[in-house]
Amino acid sequence: MDLERSPLALPFPEMPRIAGVTLRVARARYKNWDRCDLTYAELAEGTAVAGVFTKNVCCSTEVEMGREQVQAGRARALIVNAGNSNAFTGYRGREAVEQIMEQVAGHLGCPTSEVFVSSTGVIGVPLPKDKAREGVRAALTADECSWEDAALTIGTTDTFAKGATVAAMLGDTRVTLNGIIKGSGMIAPDMATMLGYIFTDAAVEPAFLQRCLSAANLESFSCITVDSDTSTSDTVLAFATGKAGNSPLASLDDPGADAFMAAMQDICRQLAHLVVRDGEGAQKFIGIAVSGAVSDESARRVGLAIANSPLVKTAIAGGDANWGRVVMAVGKAGEPADRDRLSIGFGGIWAARDGLPLPDYDEAPVAKHLAGQEIDIVVDLGLGEGRATVWTCDLTHGYISINADYRS
Amino acid sequence: MDLERSPLALPFPEMPRIAGVTLRVARARYKNWDRCDLTYAELAEGTAVAGVFTKNVCCSTEVEMGREQVQAGRARALIVNAGNSNAFTGYRGREAVEQIMEQVAGHLGCPTSEVFVSSTGVIGVPLPKDKAREGVRAALTADECSWEDAALTIGTTDTFAKGATVAAMLGDTRVTLNGIIKGSGMIAPDMATMLGYIFTDAAVEPAFLQRCLSAANLESFSCITVDSDTSTSDTVLAFATGKAGNSPLASLDDPGADAFMAAMQDICRQLAHLVVRDGEGAQKFIGIAVSGAVSDESARRVGLAIANSPLVKTAIAGGDANWGRVVMAVGKAGEPADRDRLSIGFGGIWAARDGLPLPDYDEAPVAKHLAGQEIDIVVDLGLGEGRATVWTCDLTHGYISINADYRS
Repeated sequence: MDLERSPLALPFPEMPRIAGVTLRVARARYKNWDRCDLTYAELAEGTAVAGVFTKNVCCSTEVEMGREQVQAGRARALIVNAGNSNAFTGYRGREAVEQIMEQVAGHLGCPTSEVFVSSTGVIGVPLPKDKAREGVRAALTADECSWEDAALTIGTTDTFAKGATVAAMLGDTRVTLNGIIKGSGMIAPDMATMLGYIFTDAAVEPAFLQRCLSAANLESFSCITVDSDTSTSDTVLAFATGKAGNSPLASLDDPGADAFMAAMQDICRQLAHLVVRDGEGAQKFIGIAVSGAVSDESARRVGLAIANSPLVKTAIAGGDANWGRVVMAVGKAGEPADRDRLSIGFGGIWAARDGLPLPDYDEAPVAKHLAGQEIDIVVDLGLGEGRATVWTCDLTHGYISINADYRS
Repeated sequence: MDLERSPLALPFPEMPRIAGVTLRVARARYKNWDRCDLTYAELAEGTAVAGVFTKNVCCSTEVEMGREQVQAGRARALIVNAGNSNAFTGYRGREAVEQIMEQVAGHLGCPTSEVFVSSTGVIGVPLPKDKAREGVRAALTADECSWEDAALTIGTTDTFAKGATVAAMLGDTRVTLNGIIKGSGMIAPDMATMLGYIFTDAAVEPAFLQRCLSAANLESFSCITVDSDTSTSDTVLAFATGKAGNSPLASLDDPGADAFMAAMQDICRQLAHLVVRDGEGAQKFIGIAVSGAVSDESARRVGLAIANSPLVKTAIAGGDANWGRVVMAVGKAGEPADRDRLSIGFGGIWAARDGLPLPDYDEAPVAKHLAGQEIDIVVDLGLGEGRATVWTCDLTHGYISINADYRS
């Protein structure tokens, strides 16, 4: 199926080189297609790694192994297979991953545990070992490619290449974070994106890199949803090569650690938003800011209940300021809420306050806001200080078209 | 919007009279339409009542009051307004309900607390008191109408009238249960239907009637979902007039109590299925039987995670035996599951067993099954003895069309 480029797509940014990272792509032909579908990132010796993974209990072999591998904190390579998720494939799937790890480790002369593998695509078909072997062989010696090439190659039903870059000053040292991400459906917390990779030349100790990534994840990938479905393969990895030469960051007390943490949060939020912008069938990008909850976590849950409500998402698709559906979604979230303290607004205009429609509510400017591509919904629960913002897209005919005949 | 009759619709059954129940309908014109939209059921003195209600914390005034009223266990009348749910309308909504209760109670010479009111339709617009007064006035003296007329009148976006009838023998006494129900979207547990009413001529003590209804609800209305959205108005009420003359049922030890409980479960399941058959945009009726869970409740949650997954529902819409999406939904349910013990089948044919695709899996008969209108999915978790069956429909373009411009 040919998919049209999302109307919410952003242009791929100019992305600088990251010292210690070399990207290459190849054709493994995991599906009957003529495109690159295997991505190889070679990482300098001593690169630190951190990761966050799907909480889906039926996760893939790659996720199981990745979780173990990040414990040791070091990475030399990343392989990403597109077109076959290798999930739910038992021992045969595991053998394919081990073969890839051994092949790459043999080439680099590193431990197999420093080779990370991700796969994305159809569930239940073991990754074909012969295609993987040939694909990896080609990738290991391919010419270096661009960030955009790599971003395209990790994609499956994505309609545009997704990347982001952020710079930060650690004292006198300028460091760069580059990220690429893929995903457009089966996106939901916890761990919202399918596959995302962040590379930085900063020197960061693995434990602190993990702390930064986990904190950023809470306010980015865990706050987006396209369709409430959580992939069995969701993975975000961060790699820090240390080539910038800064004094390695090990805790928030280190000089520059704040700036690095902020940069990580920035790039994760940018990448998360790109996934929503490519949400299957998305025509509108929706931000939902919830305040007045009993806690930040409660606010996040309420926000996700709204963001996952098919009735809210179809109302926005239709440009309908149907705040009653927002009330419904708040009420079903399972979190503390009081109908008579609830306020709801669209595009900066309150539609209801303290449980009642505003008597002088003028729907015209709200309708104009909802006719646009960037929709803001504000919900105040009137109970406490908890707040969170989540992001989603509308639910349209495009979603149905894409998903009713994806595999066939 | 004119909606086409659901392809899954069933004909309205022949429904006998229930002694002690008189049905009348009228035009309150809550919307700009020319159809009956106010239903009045007059009940014999001494009628017992029980109810189950939405767990949405932003529920309507009608639900709040209904919950209180059923405590006393007696009912003389039911009024159902269609076209305006009166939810999220504060004191003005409450005044409208109280006006209706007083008007009907004055006519019947009964306490206001014995007049039950339900409303369904748009949220956030107070029920107009003048229209309600005129509508009730007309209904109180209207000619008696049929069960089908009443079933049509309580409907909103429903595409067919929904009713069911069941008979039971309590010793030598034959009793009848008649039910009508409306609902097609914003359907989700807990308490899945929008508005359902069951009437019986059996003599049943209110506490036992409540016990029967609550038990039946667990395996019927709490096991269906159309779109995971839970209405703020969901209500099922059961009324027992006692006119059949049986010795009143007060506990499961009473003769005939088993038969009555079974009849209540039967009619609730029939009514629940009718709601799924009118699920917005539904083309296929899907039963999902989960076994091998650690408990029945766990099985129900896993079943609902599958039933609410947009990716599963769109796969079924496309006739795609994409059992990988079922795996994904099992894994995100938050319940105990082991990928390597999981078995999944469609239409009586296993696609995967013990965590692996079957090597001799023949997709042709499965594809034929999925091309039909009645789809069976079987999931065995391989962990314990817990089991449950849930029902849903597929997710189609029709759902988007209906909900992207319902209110406008």
